[in-house]
Amino acid sequence: MIAKRMVSYVEASSVTRAMFEEGNRLASIYGKDKVYDFSLGNPNVEPPKEIKQAIMDIVQNENPNYVHGYMNNSGYIEVREKVASSINRRFQTSFEEKNIIMTCGAAGGLNIILMALLDPGDEVITFAPFFTEYRNYVNNFNGSLVVISPNTKTFQPNLEEFKEKITARTKAVIINTPNNPSGVVYSEETIKELSKILEEKQEEFGTSIYLISDEPYREIVYDDIEVPYLTKYYKNTVVGYSFSKSLSLPGERIGYLVIPSEVDDFENVAAAANIANRTLGFVNAPSLLQLVVARCIDVEANIEPYKKNRDLLYNGLMEFGYTCQKPQGAFYLFVKAPGGDDFAFAQAAKKHNILVVPATSFGCPGYVRIAYCVKHDTIKNSLPGFKELAKEYNLI
Amino acid sequence: MIAKRMVSYVEASSVTRAMFEEGNRLASIYGKDKVYDFSLGNPNVEPPKEIKQAIMDIVQNENPNYVHGYMNNSGYIEVREKVASSINRRFQTSFEEKNIIMTCGAAGGLNIILMALLDPGDEVITFAPFFTEYRNYVNNFNGSLVVISPNTKTFQPNLEEFKEKITARTKAVIINTPNNPSGVVYSEETIKELSKILEEKQEEFGTSIYLISDEPYREIVYDDIEVPYLTKYYKNTVVGYSFSKSLSLPGERIGYLVIPSEVDDFENVAAAANIANRTLGFVNAPSLLQLVVARCIDVEANIEPYKKNRDLLYNGLMEFGYTCQKPQGAFYLFVKAPGGDDFAFAQAAKKHNILVVPATSFGCPGYVRIAYCVKHDTIKNSLPGFKELAKEYNLI
Repeated sequence: MIAKRMVSYVEASSVTRAMFEEGNRLASIYGKDKVYDFSLGNPNVEPPKEIKQAIMDIVQNENPNYVHGYMNNSGYIEVREKVASSINRRFQTSFEEKNIIMTCGAAGGLNIILMALLDPGDEVITFAPFFTEYRNYVNNFNGSLVVISPNTKTFQPNLEEFKEKITARTKAVIINTPNNPSGVVYSEETIKELSKILEEKQEEFGTSIYLISDEPYREIVYDDIEVPYLTKYYKNTVVGYSFSKSLSLPGERIGYLVIPSEVDDFENVAAAANIANRTLGFVNAPSLLQLVVARCIDVEANIEPYKKNRDLLYNGLMEFGYTCQKPQGAFYLFVKAPGGDDFAFAQAAKKHNILVVPATSFGCPGYVRIAYCVKHDTIKNSLPGFKELAKEYNLI
Repeated sequence: MIAKRMVSYVEASSVTRAMFEEGNRLASIYGKDKVYDFSLGNPNVEPPKEIKQAIMDIVQNENPNYVHGYMNNSGYIEVREKVASSINRRFQTSFEEKNIIMTCGAAGGLNIILMALLDPGDEVITFAPFFTEYRNYVNNFNGSLVVISPNTKTFQPNLEEFKEKITARTKAVIINTPNNPSGVVYSEETIKELSKILEEKQEEFGTSIYLISDEPYREIVYDDIEVPYLTKYYKNTVVGYSFSKSLSLPGERIGYLVIPSEVDDFENVAAAANIANRTLGFVNAPSLLQLVVARCIDVEANIEPYKKNRDLLYNGLMEFGYTCQKPQGAFYLFVKAPGGDDFAFAQAAKKHNILVVPATSFGCPGYVRIAYCVKHDTIKNSLPGFKELAKEYNLI
């Protein structure tokens, strides 16, 4: 009796659930600390202490009808001003409150900007490997997701194929850097080249192509690598941000969209995104948490635990002969599946109580994703299993 | 460059914004306390003190990764258990956690259940007067909203016309009681008759027709009137609830869906709603507020201020010769526009600094909605203006 399109979603979802239940089953047999679950991108670092302080201050000192009440669907004006100022300070931009829409996380932000932009049949391009949900978000508005095949040498986007696949129906391009699942940061050179292609294609087709930069991992970067701020390279850029990973608040659903005044048809795009926020049922981003993140806007993410994890895991796996992309950001290690079959390798890993995600679902068969946002001991204790696995595949 | 369907949304929205700006303009000329703004359904009663206490307790005593982290897309199991138990205690039902999905308010809940159910072209019936956003929610999933014309004698649903308009494509019926904008509570007799019709039509067409009961105003009822709990009358009922009005938390976006195990295809409907929560970008209802409402689940709404307002406004307007539906619930007074033209009357009221909403947008031309969730003094001070207006229309 459910909607036809939901039938395949329910089927796909039961596969994920089966994996989750397998984890629970293993934990019940071997003990939770003997199961190495690398399947979920759930931050394990504590939220900074400023979050708790901000919540307490706000509920003790502010008018509760203000704290918990309705505001403009795009968010409190004073919160949006603080977000704009913070971005301006950090990236030498010049946004105002009208350029910011507070959203229910990046997932909420992507849905509302896609609703604002997409007519049925419009094409949205993304680069493999990509966050699986993009396909669903585009489907929500009857758009068509066009996937550019991965460049498995560098995991920078494959710009040759990109150039060929842009059409008159291309309405948007979604990029995600630092990338889930590869951990790669797109270089400035890549961004410049991508922008140049988009400008040429806009010219060629007489269209507007919006670049949607999905940036939940912006703050989680290692080794002083710079993540270029996209609006400075390409005029029709919309940024989607989330505090989920940087401040360890994924359950709170708080983030924002940046819609620069320079984008084509700015007034209508901003108005449509505001309305989409209401009409899709978000109405507005959760009010208390808007006020909280505004107070904590310049609190720095604690990335040390992730870096420590990355180094131990990456060095360990390299030692055992695996082929890994060294993560520059996010908290995922992208590993070539020995034997070439990601599903078979994930199955084999399970025998060592190691749970990893086959990357076929990210549009990149033959690889697996290892989410290292876990306890350091989990990584340490999983290494003997990875070593055994390496032996089974004759890597060592 | 925006999506075609968004163009009309943006136009309609600018009409609302114009009204909002008119209110600000009047306030800047005459002073804020001399403008009687009855246009918004924003609760003015303070949230109960238990909310603040719960927030403080939770952030001081619980693990912050638990409080702010991901959980099942349907919500924390322990929160859903508490919600189910509370409903069971109050309405002698027997729900379990699997029947509850925590949502971003009722608006989020309605979108999720409609996404779970609707194929393109499916029909959803609602009864005028109705909450304007239902049309947008149904459009989101390419459904078609079928509006039953109002019964302006009692504002109970027009069941004769309902019977005629149910077709083989009718997938859902949305009702809203206590009703926004009429303030009427659908009687048990109405509910029984409505259920009987639905059962006959399911039989006739061999279909499942889901009754979606949108209940943000369930707790806001006066004069000991009972609001029947719909799942007890009709098997295929899904309830959408919000804490926005009862606990004055509209900005927090917290509510739930009840999907009884008895509904047709229960397992798939519940799974599809869970997935829709994720895929539409909600992911889950805001985490801290889930824990807060679970602790405050049996806190009673403070309806005294609304009742006092209702009595003053209703009695005043009746005295001046207006034709009003006496509100049994919610915080809206539905008034027949003297002269018959709701837009003209709203314009005339503005000259007395009184802002009301023409009910054409609720599918009920010739009426206006007065939202009395305002300061008591606002009502008191507006009465001379309503009296002058009554004189202009020769009501007295």
